[in-house]
Amino acid sequence: MLNFEYDNKTKIIFGKGTENEVGNYTKLYGKKVLLHYGRNSIKKYGLYDKVVASLKANNIDYVELGGVQANPRLKLAKAGIELTKKENVDFILAVGGGSVIDSAKAIALGHYYDGDVWDFYLKGIRPEKVLPVGVVLTIPAAGSESSTATVISDEETGLKRGYGDVSLRPKFAILNPELTYTLPNYQTSCGVVDIIGHVIERYMTNTTDVELTDRLCESVITTVINNAPKALNDNTDYASRAEIMWAGALAHNGLVGTGREEDWASHGMEHQLSAVYDIAHGAGLAIMYPAWMKFVYKHDLNRFALFANKIFGLEINNSNLEETALKGIAKLEEFYKSIDMPIRMSDINITDENINIMAEKATHTSDIIGSFVKLNKQDIINIYKLAL
Amino acid sequence: MLNFEYDNKTKIIFGKGTENEVGNYTKLYGKKVLLHYGRNSIKKYGLYDKVVASLKANNIDYVELGGVQANPRLKLAKAGIELTKKENVDFILAVGGGSVIDSAKAIALGHYYDGDVWDFYLKGIRPEKVLPVGVVLTIPAAGSESSTATVISDEETGLKRGYGDVSLRPKFAILNPELTYTLPNYQTSCGVVDIIGHVIERYMTNTTDVELTDRLCESVITTVINNAPKALNDNTDYASRAEIMWAGALAHNGLVGTGREEDWASHGMEHQLSAVYDIAHGAGLAIMYPAWMKFVYKHDLNRFALFANKIFGLEINNSNLEETALKGIAKLEEFYKSIDMPIRMSDINITDENINIMAEKATHTSDIIGSFVKLNKQDIINIYKLAL
Repeated sequence: MLNFEYDNKTKIIFGKGTENEVGNYTKLYGKKVLLHYGRNSIKKYGLYDKVVASLKANNIDYVELGGVQANPRLKLAKAGIELTKKENVDFILAVGGGSVIDSAKAIALGHYYDGDVWDFYLKGIRPEKVLPVGVVLTIPAAGSESSTATVISDEETGLKRGYGDVSLRPKFAILNPELTYTLPNYQTSCGVVDIIGHVIERYMTNTTDVELTDRLCESVITTVINNAPKALNDNTDYASRAEIMWAGALAHNGLVGTGREEDWASHGMEHQLSAVYDIAHGAGLAIMYPAWMKFVYKHDLNRFALFANKIFGLEINNSNLEETALKGIAKLEEFYKSIDMPIRMSDINITDENINIMAEKATHTSDIIGSFVKLNKQDIINIYKLAL
Repeated sequence: MLNFEYDNKTKIIFGKGTENEVGNYTKLYGKKVLLHYGRNSIKKYGLYDKVVASLKANNIDYVELGGVQANPRLKLAKAGIELTKKENVDFILAVGGGSVIDSAKAIALGHYYDGDVWDFYLKGIRPEKVLPVGVVLTIPAAGSESSTATVISDEETGLKRGYGDVSLRPKFAILNPELTYTLPNYQTSCGVVDIIGHVIERYMTNTTDVELTDRLCESVITTVINNAPKALNDNTDYASRAEIMWAGALAHNGLVGTGREEDWASHGMEHQLSAVYDIAHGAGLAIMYPAWMKFVYKHDLNRFALFANKIFGLEINNSNLEETALKGIAKLEEFYKSIDMPIRMSDINITDENINIMAEKATHTSDIIGSFVKLNKQDIINIYKLAL
């Protein structure tokens, strides 16, 4: 186990009807709120009205900025920064999924910064001060509701970049599984893949003596795998949607990675895939993990056999660990397929034409990505080819 | 799953050598510290010198109060409150195990309170303001390093009472597994029982649809059971001691109880046992859990069968769940015995003479304790008898 520091100051408010309390929590931090959201769904299903009613009931003034799309754009975040500066906003309330929250975090970063907010993402500089952010979550997936992370895409350059700072953890996150009832199954599945991905990035580690966090990782993944079919089969099944929603927060709040070296190469490669093709992050991850796993599994057959055993209940063949490892990867592919996710680029009609460009972009800030196995540009090209 | 709120603002600093950084964290909160500790061990093994050196290096002034004993006493806490008021202390640094931290929390409660600090424990009133507390942990057991709880004993009345408030979560907790190398095996075992107990109190619940937290509970318990023999066999085995130490914090930081009704009857009964006989809390719990389980298991055979299966790998006999449940309880007893814990009062020469008094005290603030099965005074007497 490695030395680590861990704290997570995001207050989770979890359960039925909790979105109606948003004003009570917001007023602890701000008086003039930027209400940030995506497109039509929060208005269509009544969430917008509930949030606004709760803000008004608490005498909180607000301005709005909707229009966040999947793979949230730098351009909109910059418009948000202009707005928060002009309107003297002191709190950002993100109502939506990971894209909305990530966009809110970008605005939070830019509000007190004189330069270009993109500097944070490209140069990794630290913010002196950020606007506080609160969340009403509608899509369990990104874990951004209690994470330090934000991922933004710049349409002009085609770059998609992640950034993280502890100051970006939301002050509170309201998680009501009922708010996910209206999600299309495709989005639920993408979320499930993303949640599992956040744990795989931590599970596949070179750090030894990490038994407790191994078990925690397995707990999150198996719970999500077990509940996904139920949630997809019945959109109003509170129990399964609650399990997935809480799992989504724990997968990426830092806990299951404590004391471990993490990887994140697959996320890096997926970011370029979704930057070029504007596909959903989860769908891209369902394509990238099997390919990445096939490229790296020989690096630690024991760990891949453990994954096969603990996640899918496969018996470990000690005289042929490779067999167990490969069966585990096949089971993961099978699970992704069972929830209607693509597992090859060809499943969504992507060919090899942009592989070199994506590999180039994936190594834009560092020649080497990943840590379980360190990958150079040629390795990344080979992994993209395995994903065809 | 029940609606819940969860946050834990304690910063965990985990790993080798971290105690040398205590001054860096302390200075974020205070300039005049009460250094609170137990008896001789922190001086004997050099920890005291390291802590003082780090405080001095950060220009932090301090006064001292040592002498905290197991089952920390109200009298010493009151002396501490007098001292913090007189010396204008603005931060309490607890260096020790759960008793020292609980005593520090009592002092934190009393510092800004005009009345008797015992009011909090007896009447459950809320504090307006408390002194901030920091921790250097030496015994993984109580989980007090990141919990809201404090348990104090009043020698005059023989009452032992717990209290909890979110304001009592320590600001930071330094967890270096190396600091546990000098613990006698008996104390390590007591800690192991305590850690497992904190999870059992949450695992045995009437709340349904709590799959993820079930898995998290099992992760903590199985990790501790798996690592305890290694830690006891080699006091300087960093890996196993690290697993137990991190498990000890997670067992009682609130996470594994999210969305669940919790029980706490066994803790309540044990508190009276250790109040009357001044035995170690962990030893008392190793006696109380098997007795409590034998009294309540029929209330939910499925849950006890799950416990047997997930914790001890026993196959569930679906045509005779009771058999599986009882085997699981027997396995828990076997584990306690294997780490040299008593499992009956008779193992430590306690007879039935004070059973009525203990049952009386256990129902001092409420006629009914527990929630998995609600227990009245006669039930409690019967459980104590099962523990003889």
